[in-house]
Amino acid sequence: AEAGDPQQLGEYVSGLSSCDQALALSRLDERLRASVLSGLDADDAAELIGHLPESQAARAIALLTPDDAAAIVHELPSDEQADVLGDLSTDQAEAILEALPVDEADAARQLSSYDDNVAGGMMVTEMLRFTPEMTVADVIAELNAGAEIYSDFDVRYAYVCETDGKLVGVLPMQNLLFVKRAAKLADLMIQNPLAVSDTTELDELIDFFESHAFVGVPVVDETGLLKGVLHREAVSYEETRAAESDYLKSQGIVGGEELRSMPLWLRARRRLSWLSINILLNIGAAGVIAYFQDTLQSVIALAVFLPIISDMSGCSGNQAVAVSMRELSLGLVRPSEMMRVWWKEVSVGMINGAVLGLLVALLAVVFDGNYYLGLVVGLALLINTIVAVSIGGVVPLLMKRFGFDPAVASGPLLTTVTDMCGFFLVLGLATMLLSKLV
Amino acid sequence: AEAGDPQQLGEYVSGLSSCDQALALSRLDERLRASVLSGLDADDAAELIGHLPESQAARAIALLTPDDAAAIVHELPSDEQADVLGDLSTDQAEAILEALPVDEADAARQLSSYDDNVAGGMMVTEMLRFTPEMTVADVIAELNAGAEIYSDFDVRYAYVCETDGKLVGVLPMQNLLFVKRAAKLADLMIQNPLAVSDTTELDELIDFFESHAFVGVPVVDETGLLKGVLHREAVSYEETRAAESDYLKSQGIVGGEELRSMPLWLRARRRLSWLSINILLNIGAAGVIAYFQDTLQSVIALAVFLPIISDMSGCSGNQAVAVSMRELSLGLVRPSEMMRVWWKEVSVGMINGAVLGLLVALLAVVFDGNYYLGLVVGLALLINTIVAVSIGGVVPLLMKRFGFDPAVASGPLLTTVTDMCGFFLVLGLATMLLSKLV
Repeated sequence: AEAGDPQQLGEYVSGLSSCDQALALSRLDERLRASVLSGLDADDAAELIGHLPESQAARAIALLTPDDAAAIVHELPSDEQADVLGDLSTDQAEAILEALPVDEADAARQLSSYDDNVAGGMMVTEMLRFTPEMTVADVIAELNAGAEIYSDFDVRYAYVCETDGKLVGVLPMQNLLFVKRAAKLADLMIQNPLAVSDTTELDELIDFFESHAFVGVPVVDETGLLKGVLHREAVSYEETRAAESDYLKSQGIVGGEELRSMPLWLRARRRLSWLSINILLNIGAAGVIAYFQDTLQSVIALAVFLPIISDMSGCSGNQAVAVSMRELSLGLVRPSEMMRVWWKEVSVGMINGAVLGLLVALLAVVFDGNYYLGLVVGLALLINTIVAVSIGGVVPLLMKRFGFDPAVASGPLLTTVTDMCGFFLVLGLATMLLSKLV
Repeated sequence: AEAGDPQQLGEYVSGLSSCDQALALSRLDERLRASVLSGLDADDAAELIGHLPESQAARAIALLTPDDAAAIVHELPSDEQADVLGDLSTDQAEAILEALPVDEADAARQLSSYDDNVAGGMMVTEMLRFTPEMTVADVIAELNAGAEIYSDFDVRYAYVCETDGKLVGVLPMQNLLFVKRAAKLADLMIQNPLAVSDTTELDELIDFFESHAFVGVPVVDETGLLKGVLHREAVSYEETRAAESDYLKSQGIVGGEELRSMPLWLRARRRLSWLSINILLNIGAAGVIAYFQDTLQSVIALAVFLPIISDMSGCSGNQAVAVSMRELSLGLVRPSEMMRVWWKEVSVGMINGAVLGLLVALLAVVFDGNYYLGLVVGLALLINTIVAVSIGGVVPLLMKRFGFDPAVASGPLLTTVTDMCGFFLVLGLATMLLSKLV
């Protein structure tokens, strides 16, 4: 299906399972992808958009005419609307919003003004909403009348609001099975329900759903007006994204997700932005070697062990980074507890540094026959392991405390410092013991 | 709270929010943690167990008497029961199972026989289960009579089974609001409902819930008997765990999660098991340097550039690993598509390798004044970047294809090969051009 009629392609695509659809669409050229989408019914296209990776979804929407795009956006649930519009440029988003019904556009504008990782950015505005004076019979009549609208809603709970929009109660819908049809919601609802503020952040929301077995929670603004419903599912989704994003960033994929279907220059440029910072940091470590060139020239066997020392320290330090990241995300450590973390790491570092140091010392003696060479590289690895786990354990807490992203910055900073320190230890100790080594 | 009366400590703990509880408990000595748990009501203790990291939960249960442990396990939902029992030794698990009611023990044995990452291992057995002959009035009477049991259930859907246990229908409970009380479930239920097999794996389940807007799906065995219900939430949870586990493994935390509250020796041993494999791999790379010692001694400036070449190639390769891992988990690439991935990586590698190679060549000329040194290190970095991204992109697919865990093995394998290859390129090229370099 390299080229051909978008219409036909659209028919082919709609016959596939939705995973194969996502795979097929993600492989298409961007413009072809857009024409397939504009050839489908708006609700089929919306369904497909929902299965594309977010970065592709926004790019595909951006290539449609505002009217085509608006027809598809209209069919998306409110939280996906906000995500897609948020990934577009302001001009593109405005053009689409102007082609939407006015009240839907207002709601979408409001939703996309929230950050992705606060309650307002994860909630949906589709919810059952009644007033306290309504009876069970009123509710059933309303549900029957609006059956088509409500078919996409989560109807396990209804939210009861005063006419000014203030949230006053929550109503588990299955309770309506057991009561008289003349009963008033005011008498059936759970009063003073728990709610979260629209600005509550992801960490707190994860804690909230861990502490409460709710499937969803109402979201209110600072004046207590009901703004939407946050489902447990949406929080889990953001949590998964955060874990995935930590992994990508720790491996040097920064500036958003990379897919191999993206344009070559974009992929190369993004990866280079990270690599060029690393090469600058590497020059520092190389400088240490340059400074000790004469020692290295006299004892060339040291050159064999430099990469082992720097690589092993890097590995040990990365292990400590990973444990700190994990404990931070589980809430098992606070950014201020640096001394505790440091001590826990130093103790592991002393054991592992001693074992690895002994191993590398033995290796040096076997390789070179000089016990002092063993002493130099073994001692350097012992000390540098302790340095590496200390930095690796503490740096993520420091980053978090000062508002940096610990996943991005911890790795390169760690490697640079452990490389510099490792080279300095090996070559410095060797310079001190030079007479015994040559 | 270093020491003291466990009873009092239990009271203190139950006054905290559940996140602070998890934090406080996770910090306690293991035996003290067990005595706090045995001092609490079984249902409070079960609630707390649910908030502990899984590895701590099992260790805490293991230190209780089988009767105390059984009382707590009895209060856990069926999927958590299976997780906790699965983390214990067979003897410990059997002792607890024998102290449970017989039918609950049988159910728990069956659940814990499933792997964590198949539908059977993630489902719950708590569900509303009726027969097709029952009327709406029967269902309402049953729900009222069993209100206490059902309070912990998810009551959005009921599952309709023949008396032999074969699943024949699904019933959205809110539909009961709109029908006559004499209506039979057989006439109300959705017939031939979608179901997943108890052996369906996580990847497929993620796809399933992406393709269907269900909150849960019935799980059946190969003969169509209903075994449990799998909630979307449980799949999201396992998906998050998988992403977190990929991150930890890529950073060298293997053999399960590490928390700093674990015993020092366990933490040191687990980290060492990974480090000792790495040091062996490192010896290979060091061997290449040893082989070219004479060249290195004649042109000591090369030693300054060796770490830059190996580190930068490692970074480039890791980026490619991360993109492959991500595309595998999104289902955007199949393990067999190695040629496509390889070509996509080679093209990025040529661009980035050229830029970085030029940079490092310039650096060498500035540092040493010798254009040939620039040629050697620049060319080596260009070639090695292409090698690194090729390996980094393809190895995860190969690992997956042959049933290894790509997150664990890709990193060290990549670094070893790129180090060896990088050292070989720099020193081999230098040996060829030796007359121009000295």
